Amino acid sequence: MKNLAILGSTGSIGQSTLSIVEQFPDRYSVAALAAGHNIDEAFAQAVRWHPRLVSMATEELAGELSARLRKAGVTGIEVAYGTEGTVACATLPEADFVVSAIVGVAGLEATHAAILSGKPIGLANKECMVAAGEILTAAARERNVPILPIDSEHNAVHQCLRVGAHSEVKTIWLTASGGPFRKLPLDQFASITPEQALKHPTWVMGRRITIDSATMLNKGLEIIEACRLFDVTPCQVRVTVHPQSTVHSLVEYVDGSILAQISVTDMRLPILYALAYPERPASTLTFDMAALSHLEFEQPDFERFPCLRLAFEAAEKGGAHCIALNAADEVAVEAFLERRIPFTGIPRTIEKVLASTTEAHPATIAGVLAADREARQTARALLA
Amino acid sequence: MKNLAILGSTGSIGQSTLSIVEQFPDRYSVAALAAGHNIDEAFAQAVRWHPRLVSMATEELAGELSARLRKAGVTGIEVAYGTEGTVACATLPEADFVVSAIVGVAGLEATHAAILSGKPIGLANKECMVAAGEILTAAARERNVPILPIDSEHNAVHQCLRVGAHSEVKTIWLTASGGPFRKLPLDQFASITPEQALKHPTWVMGRRITIDSATMLNKGLEIIEACRLFDVTPCQVRVTVHPQSTVHSLVEYVDGSILAQISVTDMRLPILYALAYPERPASTLTFDMAALSHLEFEQPDFERFPCLRLAFEAAEKGGAHCIALNAADEVAVEAFLERRIPFTGIPRTIEKVLASTTEAHPATIAGVLAADREARQTARALLA
Repeated sequence: MKNLAILGSTGSIGQSTLSIVEQFPDRYSVAALAAGHNIDEAFAQAVRWHPRLVSMATEELAGELSARLRKAGVTGIEVAYGTEGTVACATLPEADFVVSAIVGVAGLEATHAAILSGKPIGLANKECMVAAGEILTAAARERNVPILPIDSEHNAVHQCLRVGAHSEVKTIWLTASGGPFRKLPLDQFASITPEQALKHPTWVMGRRITIDSATMLNKGLEIIEACRLFDVTPCQVRVTVHPQSTVHSLVEYVDGSILAQISVTDMRLPILYALAYPERPASTLTFDMAALSHLEFEQPDFERFPCLRLAFEAAEKGGAHCIALNAADEVAVEAFLERRIPFTGIPRTIEKVLASTTEAHPATIAGVLAADREARQTARALLA
Repeated sequence: MKNLAILGSTGSIGQSTLSIVEQFPDRYSVAALAAGHNIDEAFAQAVRWHPRLVSMATEELAGELSARLRKAGVTGIEVAYGTEGTVACATLPEADFVVSAIVGVAGLEATHAAILSGKPIGLANKECMVAAGEILTAAARERNVPILPIDSEHNAVHQCLRVGAHSEVKTIWLTASGGPFRKLPLDQFASITPEQALKHPTWVMGRRITIDSATMLNKGLEIIEACRLFDVTPCQVRVTVHPQSTVHSLVEYVDGSILAQISVTDMRLPILYALAYPERPASTLTFDMAALSHLEFEQPDFERFPCLRLAFEAAEKGGAHCIALNAADEVAVEAFLERRIPFTGIPRTIEKVLASTTEAHPATIAGVLAADREARQTARALLA
């Protein structure tokens, strides 16, 4: 029985994780839930799962949750709030496994704290690895803490890496759907609207990640994530555009063999894999082989998607450049969604922020967060 | 350094194995070569590799080889012949690894002897596993002898099986090119000529295996081989037609993940894998990702290819039925190549031989060979 702390429990990954706990009551239970602002969902989850600890974004929300629980006659649940509350969830002695699924750098401190307290991590938060991968992986290695990737590409890579030694890996091929603008003429990119960019062909996801898929910056973040998670160089990571999103990624070995992982596009599958590793419990997420009837793979177009190039450059430099890439993108995507800059302004903003970033490798989470704030300020100043 | 005994050294797999020894002189050397009738090639190999022992098909050929070696001033090579000679190669104390690549049941005794003497096997001879898989795998299990498959499909399966436990395997999906008649109208099957059937779309192979690919009996033998090699039931093995022959096979796990192995269609790759397992030495057999541009998978047509159905039935019954399937096919293919029966006569002959086969599970190699002879006689009598 694994007792879970779920950071980001009311988000999409958090909810999928709880649906797996529901399916496998003999394998998993809930020790702690770190929610954000969604008080209704947090209350429902607390009542349903009765964890030892629930954390909300603010003191006010925590107070409201406590009141509701009292009114409902639910006792024995401690309620906390803020970063401190999230860290308390992540380090709760009863928790055996931490699912890190808070979007953005907000989950960083808690994920770091979980690693420091020796808890295995299921990592759905890619910004953590991009911004602080050097620190997190060093801490995990030191304490022999496994970090199991929950996003579909890195989860696929994790599976494919099991058939060879680390020194035998030649190339990690991350698949990309190519987003909605894979075939759009280049001269029309400047006039892409938020509505067009928010329509992703294969996955239903949050707003920022959907725009990041359209610019392929999302794949750029995954390149950096892959370098950190799997201890490879940026030269060893490549992207292949696979519009069907059926093959979730591939690993090429030095002997010439390539291993690929295939499954339905359902996040419960990588979550279950991370929770159960190295076991594979039987699930109902059956793949229909008919979906293999027709698969395409093609090279990404670096001219259409300059964010890919920027990500490779940031991956090479590491440290502050990776932090700036992520931070500048978040600011630029916000500006694009508010129609303050065009679609092509996103890579332009990132490029400018990266150009003004000095090479540095923050050694602490505080240092990472400072570099993140600085990059956001630079981006905001550029867009003002 | 692994010292190899190569059974079937002058055949295609044997020669490819020697080309790998050539490429990796620090890893492999040659202890013994079992050749057949190709005296010129056997002589050249003996001179080049200077093994301790060479075996030829007959006493006469052995005498000729000895004379040629003497004349060439090559000393220190012992020459043997016949089954006894092949067995001597397979059990030579200096040999650390045996490549079993003699076509047909001729390699059976030597392969069995190699397992009994505790030597790891690289198995390219699929008839061995079909006819005597029950005996060979039991012997291998008892002595903890690894059997590493060298044909591309089972080698792919072996790789994909490394990412999960045996109990977590749901289905082994063997890929099949579908052969040259995948889309031929069913009413034209009776008039297929040997010339048409000998043209395989993706692999260049021997005559029998090429015809077996056209009838898909080859895939049928592989179904049985998979059951034995990987200890699964026939219900756990399925066939998917993949005309590009790029994905060499897939394994579906109970959690919903499918792992696939991809590589160039070059037998040196599975040979190298088998020789080096669990290591993966760097090779020059690089896969061009452009070959993935377009992949198709479709269900096999059991009406067009009744041999597949017959193979599944034989796999269910095991023992003598698997022996008869292979033996009857060999006789029928010969008759087809000699234009004595039509293409559709191949499955008809097999079906009749299977119908007259009594359920039995020979427990010795002699018993297997007797059942094999009996099935051949039945087939010949039917075709007379």
